[in-house]
Amino acid sequence: MKVGIIGLGLIGGSMAIDLKRKGFADEIIGTENDAVNAAAAEKMGLVDRVADFDECVDSADIVVVAVPVGAAVRMLPRILDRFATNNRRQVVIDVCSTKEQIVRSVHYHPLRPCYVPTHPMAGTEYSGPWAAMPGLFDGRACILCNTEESDPKAVHLVERLYDALNMRVIYMNASNHDVHTAYVSHISHITSFALALTVLDKEKDEKHIFDLASGGFSSTVRLAKSNADMWVPILSQNRDNVLQVIDTYIEKMKDFREAIDNYDEDGIRSLIEKANKIKRIIR
Amino acid sequence: MKVGIIGLGLIGGSMAIDLKRKGFADEIIGTENDAVNAAAAEKMGLVDRVADFDECVDSADIVVVAVPVGAAVRMLPRILDRFATNNRRQVVIDVCSTKEQIVRSVHYHPLRPCYVPTHPMAGTEYSGPWAAMPGLFDGRACILCNTEESDPKAVHLVERLYDALNMRVIYMNASNHDVHTAYVSHISHITSFALALTVLDKEKDEKHIFDLASGGFSSTVRLAKSNADMWVPILSQNRDNVLQVIDTYIEKMKDFREAIDNYDEDGIRSLIEKANKIKRIIR
Repeated sequence: MKVGIIGLGLIGGSMAIDLKRKGFADEIIGTENDAVNAAAAEKMGLVDRVADFDECVDSADIVVVAVPVGAAVRMLPRILDRFATNNRRQVVIDVCSTKEQIVRSVHYHPLRPCYVPTHPMAGTEYSGPWAAMPGLFDGRACILCNTEESDPKAVHLVERLYDALNMRVIYMNASNHDVHTAYVSHISHITSFALALTVLDKEKDEKHIFDLASGGFSSTVRLAKSNADMWVPILSQNRDNVLQVIDTYIEKMKDFREAIDNYDEDGIRSLIEKANKIKRIIR
Repeated sequence: MKVGIIGLGLIGGSMAIDLKRKGFADEIIGTENDAVNAAAAEKMGLVDRVADFDECVDSADIVVVAVPVGAAVRMLPRILDRFATNNRRQVVIDVCSTKEQIVRSVHYHPLRPCYVPTHPMAGTEYSGPWAAMPGLFDGRACILCNTEESDPKAVHLVERLYDALNMRVIYMNASNHDVHTAYVSHISHITSFALALTVLDKEKDEKHIFDLASGGFSSTVRLAKSNADMWVPILSQNRDNVLQVIDTYIEKMKDFREAIDNYDEDGIRSLIEKANKIKRIIR
């Protein structure tokens, strides 16, 4: 099996490592349009060879689009166009964090059945080929969207790919996917960004942040290191859902503000105890 | 050296483990007013013996008050009163997360010099004697407040105690301490509580939270497991500082909201890139 990976960053690179290691791929061809990242990925041996976009798409049995979702939306129709010319059975997946717009971008493409939208729920706050690591996907969930619009054989191949990465596959339609990820994933990035901005704004003396930051602050603000190239298109493509969650979140902040402002210790306690219920869900 | 620890939870218990292990304490006497926690601490061998409050205070050379700050404020004058009766050189420290009110509570006490206000910046989101662990304080910062109001010999003893725990000691006045901890520590707890409330409110189907929560969400929401008994008095005692930070934080959230609402990708990018500067400070 030849796997072509477009974008050799954290996700594409980590996939390359494990698909080779687990024996799913015989050969991995990568393409990366940032010259430094491409050279680093080649030097680190993340892929068997680095090629240009066309060669990568033409030679692969399965193409993985692992670039920010804005670029992915423009790239996907071009890939299906090339598949049409190549005239052999090929499959393409994307691994982006929002799904509605990318699915819509090829809805009427004659080769739509060759495409399977996926979202492996794994990552770190780091990016680039140097952030790639073995085992990143291990034991995590991967969402497959709108599989009824894909060729069942393509879906089956993609299930085997994620099985090689030891991921639990979940099926969801693209629009539900975007609602749920707004609530669980996208809002936690925004709250971290806002926390970093607040603290940087106020703590002019950076040494104090460093001294006073116990483990709690570091873990809460960790996602604020996340890459703008990845997050700008996610927040902008998932605009409506994200706006709704932000509004709910601001309401909750205001509930805290009001209880503290009114010296209402019972109110503060009741908010904290409700929040504690997250224990049932997150280990 | 006999150490008396009042409150055998995460902080008191972890201190007991390491003060004994590092040889700072020959004997550790603990007191704990929750019967289950007291029995557990005794059974786990966290302390050499569990005693009542009076015996613990009377027999110790140094008393550590490791209870929520509301209770600590009421307890501290009583401890200094007992010291006056005991009529020998004794020292008391507290380890609470807010400092202005507790310092004020004994400002005019004749034995004020026997008290050293401290705040070891370490913890986890868990509580109770079963959360105690060796090495919790290792390499972290510990703040000593208003040391000019304490007997220099008492300060020196406390410095030796934190040195045994391998903490870096920082000196700050109580009011600056409360401002800085509001910005770095207290706000991150509130943002986590609010995140948990938002997600629990919206994700009626809890399985989705579990499925979709990648490492990022878990780390951002981790502090939402924190104990109400500890956090209600912190937020209420540090009211004015906390309200200010909440207001700044809500402004930052609204900046994100506005940029997303206006399809302003440059604006979103600029906010994220400013937030990324936290990298310089947090490893």
